[in-house]
Amino acid sequence: MTPFRVGLLGHGTVGAAFSELLEQRAGEVEGATGRRPEISGVLTRSRGDADEVIQGSELVVELIGGVEPARTYVLGAMRAGRHVVTANKALLSQHGEEIYETAREVGVQLRFEAAVGGVVPVIRVIHETLAAAHIDRVHGIVNGTTNYILSEMARTGASYDEALREAQALGFAEADPSDDVSGRDAAAKMAILARLAFGARVDLDDVSYEGIESLTQQDIGYAKELGLSLKLVGTAERVGGGLSVRVHPTFLFGAHPLSAIGGSFNAVTIESPAITEITLSGPGAGGSQTASAVLGDVVSAMIPPAALPPPPVDQPLVSDVESAFYLHLEVADRPGVLAQVAEILGLQGVSVKSVVQHGLGDDARLEMVVHRVLESKFLAAVELIGRLEFLRSPPRVIRVIEETF
Amino acid sequence: MTPFRVGLLGHGTVGAAFSELLEQRAGEVEGATGRRPEISGVLTRSRGDADEVIQGSELVVELIGGVEPARTYVLGAMRAGRHVVTANKALLSQHGEEIYETAREVGVQLRFEAAVGGVVPVIRVIHETLAAAHIDRVHGIVNGTTNYILSEMARTGASYDEALREAQALGFAEADPSDDVSGRDAAAKMAILARLAFGARVDLDDVSYEGIESLTQQDIGYAKELGLSLKLVGTAERVGGGLSVRVHPTFLFGAHPLSAIGGSFNAVTIESPAITEITLSGPGAGGSQTASAVLGDVVSAMIPPAALPPPPVDQPLVSDVESAFYLHLEVADRPGVLAQVAEILGLQGVSVKSVVQHGLGDDARLEMVVHRVLESKFLAAVELIGRLEFLRSPPRVIRVIEETF
Repeated sequence: MTPFRVGLLGHGTVGAAFSELLEQRAGEVEGATGRRPEISGVLTRSRGDADEVIQGSELVVELIGGVEPARTYVLGAMRAGRHVVTANKALLSQHGEEIYETAREVGVQLRFEAAVGGVVPVIRVIHETLAAAHIDRVHGIVNGTTNYILSEMARTGASYDEALREAQALGFAEADPSDDVSGRDAAAKMAILARLAFGARVDLDDVSYEGIESLTQQDIGYAKELGLSLKLVGTAERVGGGLSVRVHPTFLFGAHPLSAIGGSFNAVTIESPAITEITLSGPGAGGSQTASAVLGDVVSAMIPPAALPPPPVDQPLVSDVESAFYLHLEVADRPGVLAQVAEILGLQGVSVKSVVQHGLGDDARLEMVVHRVLESKFLAAVELIGRLEFLRSPPRVIRVIEETF
Repeated sequence: MTPFRVGLLGHGTVGAAFSELLEQRAGEVEGATGRRPEISGVLTRSRGDADEVIQGSELVVELIGGVEPARTYVLGAMRAGRHVVTANKALLSQHGEEIYETAREVGVQLRFEAAVGGVVPVIRVIHETLAAAHIDRVHGIVNGTTNYILSEMARTGASYDEALREAQALGFAEADPSDDVSGRDAAAKMAILARLAFGARVDLDDVSYEGIESLTQQDIGYAKELGLSLKLVGTAERVGGGLSVRVHPTFLFGAHPLSAIGGSFNAVTIESPAITEITLSGPGAGGSQTASAVLGDVVSAMIPPAALPPPPVDQPLVSDVESAFYLHLEVADRPGVLAQVAEILGLQGVSVKSVVQHGLGDDARLEMVVHRVLESKFLAAVELIGRLEFLRSPPRVIRVIEETF
């Protein structure tokens, strides 16, 4: 058999790790597929020609990242009949339908496990294992940088800025971390997962997200008393006849499978009536981990064919969803305060699950967790509470995922 | 398109749940594969003819369990050109090579995700995602019954017998639980996983196993002080140039991804240099969960072809492996006891990681965790310690998985 020619577009950290891994594992791949893979051409920042790399290959691995020129190259490669493996979450979350449709039309393989979850094989599990399941909800810790920062804040008592600097020093965060800490990177990954889990068109623009930049040591410390740990959680779920996809700092109870995911690990929990839930976890994207996921995709593409997502169905996106919440208030310590807060919550239909009150001299601290309620109702209540004259500082609000079992 | 004809052998809990799920999800399966599946024939205990069910189908789902007549039916179905999906761990762990070889020769699909790990897609992840990875080790909690019993003992302080009775009352354990509590069921599943992870022939007979019947509340309670939780863990690993596959009650430190797996859940951690580790967890086998895994396999078989395990390579099985251990001793409380124990351990090259000593009137309790050491050396030391005249009861020994990060 002739070697299987792999064209490589992009030769940064992941690209270099992939080249190396491919060479190391070529024998095993030949054993599994019958053909030995080899890199037939490489495009780097300074060398190589994309058209030549594409023409000389049977499969193109795109590791450039970002929308352009990656989009042009990926579409061009598929139209030239090449299979494509990509780790590009920006591209798929913003131009996914164009890419999926082209792959379907031309009849080539398109695989993108490495775009979401590092080595965690969430794409394959949703797409193959759960192909016939009705998925209700996906929760994910899909950004290793923010999980590392929050884990360090919880573990060492460091401030957000200190934990961020440490993450940068250790290579877990980039010099410009805004894409990660703003929640935008996680939002792109959740858009891709939602597209697969629900078969509906979901773009990055459809995902609301909130980052971790304004979280404080106090948010983490106080909530420990309530048994909560703070994570940046992406949620994609069916709500009534529609969908909601969002990323927020979120508290998890100790029994939730995502609550123990520490450091730069990623994890995804998939809920479906027939299976209850599956949780997948593993290291987030490092060079060698991502390279391993890319190689897994190359091997799968060499044993064709596999299914592509079918054309999307229409499903409305819902913006006002139910959630449980944590509410932290600094108030003057005098009679009737809790009663007034409780009355406002009650009028909006918000039901309190647990309350802790601490005296602080003349002031007091009220921490509570409320049961699931429409966000609009809870935020309206908080707006009213924020105007109470005995309040010492603005209310702090963080979402909570309730224990399900 | 004509319907896709599925012949069903076995109609117990899982078989009935599968029939129901197939009917519910037939539309989605048609969307994913282009053909609508339907049950074309059923063999129950009292009705139906296996040959007719096989002849009338394109794919046979075998849910009878046990070796015979399942083996004859599965081989017959494949030789008649039918794809096969099975959840039969006894069959695959005892006659796997015959079954795999027949599937390869005839060129039909054989899928068995439901045989291991309930809904946890460990077979697919090892076989596809990690097809080109070098897997070093697999740790698994692969028996829901024993995990439920141990979790209840830890949570409520119940004795083994009480927890077993409760598990039986709730349907988590069978009336005759011996296959589960002896570790034999877990051993069969580890044999199947080891075959796939290492590509070497591993039969149930090659797996050493130890059950949970003799574990006591004390084993669990004392070790909590050392931050350990007790699980029935299956391990398959490369050792030197060979393999070791075994199932033992094992302590896990809190940071290990399997330590938080409670109730009847299953979980598997796969370690490989390029990926560090992946952990998969979810509910163990209940009727609807297993049915869901079976349906996932049917869908995958409808989109052919997928890879079968290649013929096995030779790899010796190693029986004496390294492990860390927990050692519990009840001793007379007098000077020099710890010194003598430590000397015996030291002579066998056993290094102590942590010790806790409690006085109990005239007696004392010594609990220690020792670092990884060859089992034969540690057990030789324990044998000598067991003969010391100041010992009040036989030493208790339980394996420990050390924190890896």
